[in-house]
Amino acid sequence: MRPTDIDAFFADRHTLDAAQYLELDYTFECGGDPRAAAAHLCAEQSTAQWQRVGVDEDYRPRHAAKVIALEAEPIAALSLPVPGAPAGPLHRVRVTVAHPHGNFGPRIPNLLSAVLGEGVYHVPGVPVIRLDDIRFPDAYLAQFPGPQFGVAGLRQLLDAHDRPIFLGVVKPNIGLTPAAFAAIAEEAWLGGLDIAKDDEMLADIDWSPLAERAQRMGEARARAERATGARKLYMANVTDEVSRIRELHDVAVSRGAGALLVNALPVGLSGLRMLREHARVPLFAHFPMVAALTRVPGYGVHARVLTKLQRLCGADAVIMPGFGDRMMVPEDEVMANVRACLEPMGPIQPALPVPGGSDSAETLPRVYATIGTRDFGFVCGRGIFGHADGPRGGAASVRAAWTQLAT
Amino acid sequence: MRPTDIDAFFADRHTLDAAQYLELDYTFECGGDPRAAAAHLCAEQSTAQWQRVGVDEDYRPRHAAKVIALEAEPIAALSLPVPGAPAGPLHRVRVTVAHPHGNFGPRIPNLLSAVLGEGVYHVPGVPVIRLDDIRFPDAYLAQFPGPQFGVAGLRQLLDAHDRPIFLGVVKPNIGLTPAAFAAIAEEAWLGGLDIAKDDEMLADIDWSPLAERAQRMGEARARAERATGARKLYMANVTDEVSRIRELHDVAVSRGAGALLVNALPVGLSGLRMLREHARVPLFAHFPMVAALTRVPGYGVHARVLTKLQRLCGADAVIMPGFGDRMMVPEDEVMANVRACLEPMGPIQPALPVPGGSDSAETLPRVYATIGTRDFGFVCGRGIFGHADGPRGGAASVRAAWTQLAT
Repeated sequence: MRPTDIDAFFADRHTLDAAQYLELDYTFECGGDPRAAAAHLCAEQSTAQWQRVGVDEDYRPRHAAKVIALEAEPIAALSLPVPGAPAGPLHRVRVTVAHPHGNFGPRIPNLLSAVLGEGVYHVPGVPVIRLDDIRFPDAYLAQFPGPQFGVAGLRQLLDAHDRPIFLGVVKPNIGLTPAAFAAIAEEAWLGGLDIAKDDEMLADIDWSPLAERAQRMGEARARAERATGARKLYMANVTDEVSRIRELHDVAVSRGAGALLVNALPVGLSGLRMLREHARVPLFAHFPMVAALTRVPGYGVHARVLTKLQRLCGADAVIMPGFGDRMMVPEDEVMANVRACLEPMGPIQPALPVPGGSDSAETLPRVYATIGTRDFGFVCGRGIFGHADGPRGGAASVRAAWTQLAT
Repeated sequence: MRPTDIDAFFADRHTLDAAQYLELDYTFECGGDPRAAAAHLCAEQSTAQWQRVGVDEDYRPRHAAKVIALEAEPIAALSLPVPGAPAGPLHRVRVTVAHPHGNFGPRIPNLLSAVLGEGVYHVPGVPVIRLDDIRFPDAYLAQFPGPQFGVAGLRQLLDAHDRPIFLGVVKPNIGLTPAAFAAIAEEAWLGGLDIAKDDEMLADIDWSPLAERAQRMGEARARAERATGARKLYMANVTDEVSRIRELHDVAVSRGAGALLVNALPVGLSGLRMLREHARVPLFAHFPMVAALTRVPGYGVHARVLTKLQRLCGADAVIMPGFGDRMMVPEDEVMANVRACLEPMGPIQPALPVPGGSDSAETLPRVYATIGTRDFGFVCGRGIFGHADGPRGGAASVRAAWTQLAT
């Protein structure tokens, strides 16, 4: 690019109509002039060729992504052993890009293609890049559904207030018959569990067809509600081909599921949005594949972006890798995801954050102290269903731990 | 895990019914005993709790993923600055895992959740892991559609044999009216282009509604076919919410699109499969987000796995990051993707590999020499539409370069 072409991909934020732009924070490592690299980033993700040959025109004013903030610091070497060693002096650069959403509209796949696509990861001289955050104008947000129930709706369904929502993943996760599955779920409900859920690996499968599982779970739930006088929910995993997912919603909900689990990235965020438009019960999004995009520092995308997008698409709750060594997620990243669920987001309702991973009654105090609010879901697997006293004792131990904390 | 529990996640390949298992090659870096880490990997991705409390049962023989090959070498440090520094001596480990597909069935989202999910990226002591390759038994493959047209079908549609298929991405990619768009596409067709395509960033958008663009492109294509006597195709980008994608297929195809472009990961592989089941024209899958999962050595997933999955889901052609510095993909990785399109895959047809990125007449000799077959698509953007002689001259330059190579 010529110097004047580089300038055309920069703008003063105050000259732009904020309602027309997404704001994207990227951190990248580049060779050569940081301003040129940032201009290339904007060009490649919007209009890298802005005029026809021989025609006096310029598509940049309306369609170009534009750098509105840039900070660069010299670095001695790239932080990652990636291919494509760039020429020239190296810098770590933090930019904010204003991207005109009118290039593609309120469509998740097209949004992903713009902000995490070829024009981000294949920018000349920029082998290391991460999308750190994304912000949307309210008028753009208003075109997405967001949560149908959200935190308030979930609390109302369960009549559970001023405390976390307690979830249990029925284990063994794979192999149980529907009858055996429902029997131990019922035990856990009787012990104090709010929501008994399918594991994210449990599908609609011959040895446990969803119709039969939901039927058994619906009956068990009704018994547990009568026995305890408390509201209970069965969360059925409807993760499947997007062509089947609405049908599975109907099968599960008609037989007794009061919430649904969907593996957001494997199904696709757009599939989650489609399910949201159809759903009559709360949707819990689960996190397979998220770590593949988010773990390596400085590369890929920050998990909070994926959390925001799940909320935008209609997840009433976002199950996320939580605290503790096993999940290998820094505490500040978990907290960024929690905030991405709960913080104000224009017309979009809050979603319930559910940080999970090897939790039990023992970890509840630390999780609660770290989160600092009661608006979260606390999910155990083996912590309840592998408990020495069985699922009822396991669930009771979690509720007892909460009682101790809350008093 | 106890030593006997570790052993239960290992098996002799020859004792397993190969038709019941996927084979997964992972490379990982771990702390402590490599065999224990591999057993945890298998447990977390299948049945981490294999019996109910107080019940004498074991779900591992039928449902556990099992290590069937393992090689470990000591390393001094992790290769990446990831969180979760594991305790104990460090090793780099290469394992092959036999994963029973009967745990979830022939469903893409459930397959992804198993092989790239929580049970892969959140294994105790294993902060660095990559899925290097995946192999399927034929009976499992037979439950997926694969390409409807494939390489042979595309050649027949275009009556183009013994040569690459020549594609051009109309540029400027964003901002042109449908009439202006069709006018320069027509020029490129007249210059010798086979397929004029939408950019992956071009959507069904108010300033270029797909219905109108497809109508104009269909008319231009008909004129170009009459003028040249050669078959031409317009490839329309139907990347959009999965709830709209079949409708967009109908809109585009009824008005003049002869092929469709879909951004596979942004839409979701399952969305691609859904489109395949509906499609009457060839589908080209494009690669946004692939680099976010594949670039960092030793982490995430090898791109050939994603290529295989796109082929399995029905992509007739896979557009992939190609050769040249800009794409920042090692040549052996591009070639692994090319092979993943063309190599035998049981009942699944070959897909056309389309390595792309800043190509032009000048890069064709190197691309052809490297690929070593004529079964590929050669795609230019600015190399045709930014050519000094205009799109007709640009397309002609590519065809002339091929004529020189082929004679």
